Amino acid sequence: MGNNLKHIGVLTSGGDAPGMNAAIRAVVRACTHYDLKVSGIHEGYQGLIDGNFQELDARAVAHIINRGGTMLKSARCMEFRSKEGREKAYEQAKKQGLDALVVIGGDGSFTGASLFSKEFDIPVVGIPGTIDNDIYGTDYTIGFDTALNTVVDAIDKIRDTATSHNRLFFIECMGRDAGFIALNAGIAGGATEILIPEDDKEVDDVVAKLKASRDAKKSSNIVLVAEGDQLGGDVFKLARDAGERLPGYDIRVSVLGHIQRGGSPTCSDRVLGSRLGVAAIEQLMSGHSGIMVGLRNDTVTTETLHDAITKKPGINRNLMHVAEIVSL
Amino acid sequence: MGNNLKHIGVLTSGGDAPGMNAAIRAVVRACTHYDLKVSGIHEGYQGLIDGNFQELDARAVAHIINRGGTMLKSARCMEFRSKEGREKAYEQAKKQGLDALVVIGGDGSFTGASLFSKEFDIPVVGIPGTIDNDIYGTDYTIGFDTALNTVVDAIDKIRDTATSHNRLFFIECMGRDAGFIALNAGIAGGATEILIPEDDKEVDDVVAKLKASRDAKKSSNIVLVAEGDQLGGDVFKLARDAGERLPGYDIRVSVLGHIQRGGSPTCSDRVLGSRLGVAAIEQLMSGHSGIMVGLRNDTVTTETLHDAITKKPGINRNLMHVAEIVSL
Amino acid sequence: MGNNLKHIGVLTSGGDAPGMNAAIRAVVRACTHYDLKVSGIHEGYQGLIDGNFQELDARAVAHIINRGGTMLKSARCMEFRSKEGREKAYEQAKKQGLDALVVIGGDGSFTGASLFSKEFDIPVVGIPGTIDNDIYGTDYTIGFDTALNTVVDAIDKIRDTATSHNRLFFIECMGRDAGFIALNAGIAGGATEILIPEDDKEVDDVVAKLKASRDAKKSSNIVLVAEGDQLGGDVFKLARDAGERLPGYDIRVSVLGHIQRGGSPTCSDRVLGSRLGVAAIEQLMSGHSGIMVGLRNDTVTTETLHDAITKKPGINRNLMHVAEIVSL
Amino acid sequence: MGNNLKHIGVLTSGGDAPGMNAAIRAVVRACTHYDLKVSGIHEGYQGLIDGNFQELDARAVAHIINRGGTMLKSARCMEFRSKEGREKAYEQAKKQGLDALVVIGGDGSFTGASLFSKEFDIPVVGIPGTIDNDIYGTDYTIGFDTALNTVVDAIDKIRDTATSHNRLFFIECMGRDAGFIALNAGIAGGATEILIPEDDKEVDDVVAKLKASRDAKKSSNIVLVAEGDQLGGDVFKLARDAGERLPGYDIRVSVLGHIQRGGSPTCSDRVLGSRLGVAAIEQLMSGHSGIMVGLRNDTVTTETLHDAITKKPGINRNLMHVAEIVSL
Repeated sequence: MGNNLKHIGVLTSGGDAPGMNAAIRAVVRACTHYDLKVSGIHEGYQGLIDGNFQELDARAVAHIINRGGTMLKSARCMEFRSKEGREKAYEQAKKQGLDALVVIGGDGSFTGASLFSKEFDIPVVGIPGTIDNDIYGTDYTIGFDTALNTVVDAIDKIRDTATSHNRLFFIECMGRDAGFIALNAGIAGGATEILIPEDDKEVDDVVAKLKASRDAKKSSNIVLVAEGDQLGGDVFKLARDAGERLPGYDIRVSVLGHIQRGGSPTCSDRVLGSRLGVAAIEQLMSGHSGIMVGLRNDTVTTETLHDAITKKPGINRNLMHVAEIVSL
Repeated sequence: MGNNLKHIGVLTSGGDAPGMNAAIRAVVRACTHYDLKVSGIHEGYQGLIDGNFQELDARAVAHIINRGGTMLKSARCMEFRSKEGREKAYEQAKKQGLDALVVIGGDGSFTGASLFSKEFDIPVVGIPGTIDNDIYGTDYTIGFDTALNTVVDAIDKIRDTATSHNRLFFIECMGRDAGFIALNAGIAGGATEILIPEDDKEVDDVVAKLKASRDAKKSSNIVLVAEGDQLGGDVFKLARDAGERLPGYDIRVSVLGHIQRGGSPTCSDRVLGSRLGVAAIEQLMSGHSGIMVGLRNDTVTTETLHDAITKKPGINRNLMHVAEIVSL
Repeated sequence: MGNNLKHIGVLTSGGDAPGMNAAIRAVVRACTHYDLKVSGIHEGYQGLIDGNFQELDARAVAHIINRGGTMLKSARCMEFRSKEGREKAYEQAKKQGLDALVVIGGDGSFTGASLFSKEFDIPVVGIPGTIDNDIYGTDYTIGFDTALNTVVDAIDKIRDTATSHNRLFFIECMGRDAGFIALNAGIAGGATEILIPEDDKEVDDVVAKLKASRDAKKSSNIVLVAEGDQLGGDVFKLARDAGERLPGYDIRVSVLGHIQRGGSPTCSDRVLGSRLGVAAIEQLMSGHSGIMVGLRNDTVTTETLHDAITKKPGINRNLMHVAEIVSL
Repeated sequence: MGNNLKHIGVLTSGGDAPGMNAAIRAVVRACTHYDLKVSGIHEGYQGLIDGNFQELDARAVAHIINRGGTMLKSARCMEFRSKEGREKAYEQAKKQGLDALVVIGGDGSFTGASLFSKEFDIPVVGIPGTIDNDIYGTDYTIGFDTALNTVVDAIDKIRDTATSHNRLFFIECMGRDAGFIALNAGIAGGATEILIPEDDKEVDDVVAKLKASRDAKKSSNIVLVAEGDQLGGDVFKLARDAGERLPGYDIRVSVLGHIQRGGSPTCSDRVLGSRLGVAAIEQLMSGHSGIMVGLRNDTVTTETLHDAITKKPGINRNLMHVAEIVSL
């Protein structure tokens, strides 16, 4: 039962994502609303182990909803992957008087959260925060929408120069294991071809598409490649391989890199972070643990942390179909 | 049966919305893909009546996906509201050899589309394009997400100056009949109070909330008001009425206005427009008419035009609950 | 001589402007660099009178260069306009051990600064911070470039919807006494006509220009009006007056309002703030007082505060000539 | 005398830059204003050789001022570097009835323009369009301000994630021969260290600065490197070399790449393009040739093409001094 909840800790873990601050803010203000004490834990699980705590009130989270990154800082923590590390964390949590924990992060962070919630008597609720959107049990993860718009904005800019010079660009965006960013941003950016890990396209397919595009008299072409797509190993090699079969093309490569992790969160990511932050506290108050809060069909839902990390959200086939048609 | 479809017309009608160009582009390229002739009809139903047609191919819609507005232009057309007007339109359509019509617009446009599809033997499919999100049968309308981000960006800017001067701002955003924009943008913009037509808040409530906010030592306050909220008649009167009961506040009013209709569409609106544009053609090919294509739970769905315009999408109660908490 | 300088105060006064934070940061870090103690004074001259001081070090101004507004807050202060008020301020300054003062603000703020520097033995240097660019002795004031880009971005958005509907928009931007914002943003936004206080255009001129524009088959028209332009009293009246003589036009009005004061500062405003902040400290160290630092021809210069506020920077006639030609 | 001018050609050459469209538009509308015929020449000098001309009127350049890239497309042309190539171009120009030529581009383009103007009796005026700002005779080149803001926006985004993880980033921006972009954007982005070709910093200096920064307890660090800075060969090698001497740092590298060439131009670049476009036509009308129009101290000036390309604009020493201080 969550009735004896008095003191909640919140941390961000793994890669930061725009909108995490909105979630922190919502967690804190929900605690204020329900008369709970709340502590921000700095630098993820390492801060939990080290006792790097800071009590937060509603004003302490003012003016952060519009900021990228995470005010609590994040880190990957090797120590927490071991039983010993998690024991230290538990002792610290007890010492600080924590009754429950909210973990904002991606699948790596949830793996630790899931173990911790099973091993010890401290309830844990996860909030999906990662730009990759690769968490099962929620339509969207916090940060995904912002990253999409950053990628599309970059493609728009590159399109300007691509068109001015009739060039072919290979652009690499994030998505080590999942093509969600590439597929959506590729459609929105007007990419001629999109390469994602979920698909099995060959260099031949890319070359064929670009030849068709030339026949269709496209003046510029963008091939958007998710970093996790194994085709040819990396985007530079892919560009070279394709280039060899496409004489006469003026080819350039651009790796978008870390700009995709930052930036002021979009409306959608702020609202999502706000909703899930409130929901996390309400789930804890209802006595739940070992779960993740998510949004499905515009409704707050829950999923076990175990399922969230072991099941894979499928790529939307309709999107792949649409991508094929609108790139004509 | 849609098997004899050969020539499709597409028009945009009513208020323009960012992402309409993505939908036009998808309609045109889907027609290319399925070997259909497609004509763009300029300036909405008026262009249908006047025969203001332009045949489009895949290249004709290049470089528009990133642009606000509609390349086909839009208009409100009184003549089409009469049976005589629609008869003229039908005759023109026959003269031009149109087999089907795609109408991108809001509820006013769909009313005409619904009547037209019932009165004549030209199949019609609607695509919901309006920043207001007030169409039944789709989670989102094209343009809504872009408008939200425009409003949030404006609030962020106003927040800078509000905080620098410890001011209280009353900001009016669009939403004549629906509070979707205000509710989402208000949460994302960190508004202290949000006034929407679906709610029944009084000036007293606003004043009480602002007094509580002062007690909580908020340094700046934003009250976001949907233009359709009848409280006090208009935002200037509301600001005056509230101001009289809030001595010592430095109050300003800002009406965001038409910037909310424009701007390069967000990733989400471009993808939505692309998906619905393709879906509209595929629905026509399947022999459907008198329907609207929409997106529910990330899946393309359909709704009768009749239901789309007569049923009202409900405001999300969870959002109102979250707004209350995160504004502490 | 400034050799005995040990403790410097810095405040922002009047309307806030994006880039003020860059200037504060530069003042503080220049003090760190030159081994001076520096105090931020909150809420302008009122804070000086009340002793609302905060000692600042290099880290205290981290992560502010990209933020609009002013971390020291600003205010207009009636009390400082009187001799008695300034005497209180002087006593407070002595009590706090201030040796010199940096005032970031516009002409109202400089009037007080000029008097204060003459009446008392505390050296004062001004930094021009105002979006209006209406200060003599500098090519640009801090915040002007950001405001210009905000206005242009708004015009671009409105252009989308204006073009989609073949509309005529009257847009009001800031500039109570000076047309710098309107003239530059009007050229950049492609305005058909620009109305500024420095000019003497009549409604007849506007109407004539719009008729010529119609003859030239422009599909949309923007008339950009500086708020200080007295033509017809206000932008709504102007739109009505012009509309009466322009039958058939679909006319809308948009008042851009306070969004023009906020937003993350542009590169140019951040660099300007940084340069002038450093220069202000170096001028104080060289023993100067009663002056403003500015930038002319990409070189840091100084001007007496008296001249800065009594002389008027002239509107650039070449810009007016260019505006006339490119609006064809 | 330019009195017999009747037909002017305009082309863009070399790397494209945001604001080139504003210059094209101004050239065209100035021609309209002065009753001159004007032809746009596609794809730079190659289009001049091949006769790829398009007559333009005021409406043909509508709705381009806000767009990146160049509507006339650009290219580098090997053939024009030879006397034979330029002779072909001259014959084509005569055939098309060209009386004068406006060349919008950077130093490579001006080299050709200078030779052409000396070898043949067709007057040529250059407009400096390049993001690098490395042209003598103008304070700013068209595209520089937009590129600066793109770089600063990227740094802001990377700063979010850098701060969240206490990371050190090496970011490479454009500037093969000149550090103008790096120096300005580095100050505005709050870079700890800035490496430019004009400077002679060693890896030791970078390491020393970063150690001082660590001592000063900076939570994140950005080193901004102009691509032309030869230190260590490339930014990845530099990061590795510095990293070896900075144990404990979590280091990342980001190469901003081609996003820096695109994007909607800033207000400043649009105004600059508009002014220089009008000025170019007026210079031709006054009978000048072999010159470049530029802006110095907010005044339109001219410089011989020869000087524009052989003299080097100096880096601003005050900026380097300011960069040193504000990065504390």
